[in-house]
Amino acid sequence: MSSFKININRFGAVFIDPDSLPDKTHTFHKWLADALPTWKQAGYLSAWVEIPEERAYLIQTAVDMGFSFHNAHGHTLTLNHRLAPNAVLPDDASHYLGAGGVAINENNELLVIREKYHNAPPGNYKLPGGYVHAGENIADAVVREVWEETGVEATFQSLVCIRHWHVDRFHKSDIYCICLLKPLTQEIVIQEEEIAECRWMPVDEFLAHEDVGDFNKGVVKTAVSHTGFISSEFDPPTNPTINQKGELFLPTT
Amino acid sequence: MSSFKININRFGAVFIDPDSLPDKTHTFHKWLADALPTWKQAGYLSAWVEIPEERAYLIQTAVDMGFSFHNAHGHTLTLNHRLAPNAVLPDDASHYLGAGGVAINENNELLVIREKYHNAPPGNYKLPGGYVHAGENIADAVVREVWEETGVEATFQSLVCIRHWHVDRFHKSDIYCICLLKPLTQEIVIQEEEIAECRWMPVDEFLAHEDVGDFNKGVVKTAVSHTGFISSEFDPPTNPTINQKGELFLPTT
Repeated sequence: MSSFKININRFGAVFIDPDSLPDKTHTFHKWLADALPTWKQAGYLSAWVEIPEERAYLIQTAVDMGFSFHNAHGHTLTLNHRLAPNAVLPDDASHYLGAGGVAINENNELLVIREKYHNAPPGNYKLPGGYVHAGENIADAVVREVWEETGVEATFQSLVCIRHWHVDRFHKSDIYCICLLKPLTQEIVIQEEEIAECRWMPVDEFLAHEDVGDFNKGVVKTAVSHTGFISSEFDPPTNPTINQKGELFLPTT
Repeated sequence: MSSFKININRFGAVFIDPDSLPDKTHTFHKWLADALPTWKQAGYLSAWVEIPEERAYLIQTAVDMGFSFHNAHGHTLTLNHRLAPNAVLPDDASHYLGAGGVAINENNELLVIREKYHNAPPGNYKLPGGYVHAGENIADAVVREVWEETGVEATFQSLVCIRHWHVDRFHKSDIYCICLLKPLTQEIVIQEEEIAECRWMPVDEFLAHEDVGDFNKGVVKTAVSHTGFISSEFDPPTNPTINQKGELFLPTT
């Protein structure tokens, strides 16, 4: 008889408590063989199991019993099993989110970098920035990334424009948010690992420079001539599964 | 001696060709034991291997040899191994991307739905919409989702606002883009599986309705009173790894 501990969510999905996974593959096989028909009969739509790296030897058994890979996070693989043939199961995350900062000082100079490891063409001047982590606000991430790469402190002003493209890195797409920042400090302290060069460049020089791509020229022109979306505080609906932090980007009035 | 076929990218990452994976765990173990020191000595920064579900029995061997779970896609788990201690490895995708449509007809009626499976509070009227797939433009996705859920055809007009929140579903965050749409048809054909009700509701009724959340009221108010970002065609840099499709959302001039 199965000794899994389980939790059931409001969509009729059964989650096996990872602490109740057995050590042996033959026990795991037997428990699944007992449990899956019972869960189907009870009307549950899907079953989910998280298997940690140290028990990777259990994964083949889960697959043998009809589970499929869903997502990997940290040192855990999550697999799922459709118990009802038409069950709609959520996809895994589909996108990377990045943010770049347009920081212009009082001398009308733009903070620019060249990366050590770059996409084509080589050597281009670009905006500082990087990836937004899950759980992190865009406004916080762009300030953090600019500080990490350049040593310049800044505050978020507005969201200038958004690029969405399909890089197909691990089969995912990419959202890149250009943000207008107000620099608070001038001194540059370069991040040696990833940045080849960082400097304050007159905006006019940047817009005319042959080592600046058209996309970067376009977004800087947009940032100095248009008002983007401003960030608003945001109270999500009360829900224990939702971290009470978030941000809402709205057109200016 | 290792018989892996490998590819090496410009960041010094070694990718094992999945077609060259051996069938037996002991062969896989021996090949990795031979190859990993060689790759380290050659100065490569990381090693990557994709293991399909039908060879899930190889995963424990990869873990034993120092590989970690990175991402799961379709029926394949990708693992990586840091060959240089300070190698910066890319994260997996961090975000879901969703899009909701504000479609208002010539009678100033808004297309609204109630979902069968909903977040709190139950029964609220909401905007139609859903998830944007990797590889799909937002402007296309919102039109597709509105059509799937309601049967109404529409065209994309502008991006009204963006909500970013941290739902922590599978440890990922969520970007939700509210788009202004122009409806082209009126007849409603409901998607039975997920939608409990769909109708055209006068905008004023929606803004006053007790079964509409403050967030949805706010974004509809914003959509009818502000110009959002318009979508622009976009030519990404020439790069064989990038699908030549994309979109750029810019403030209106």
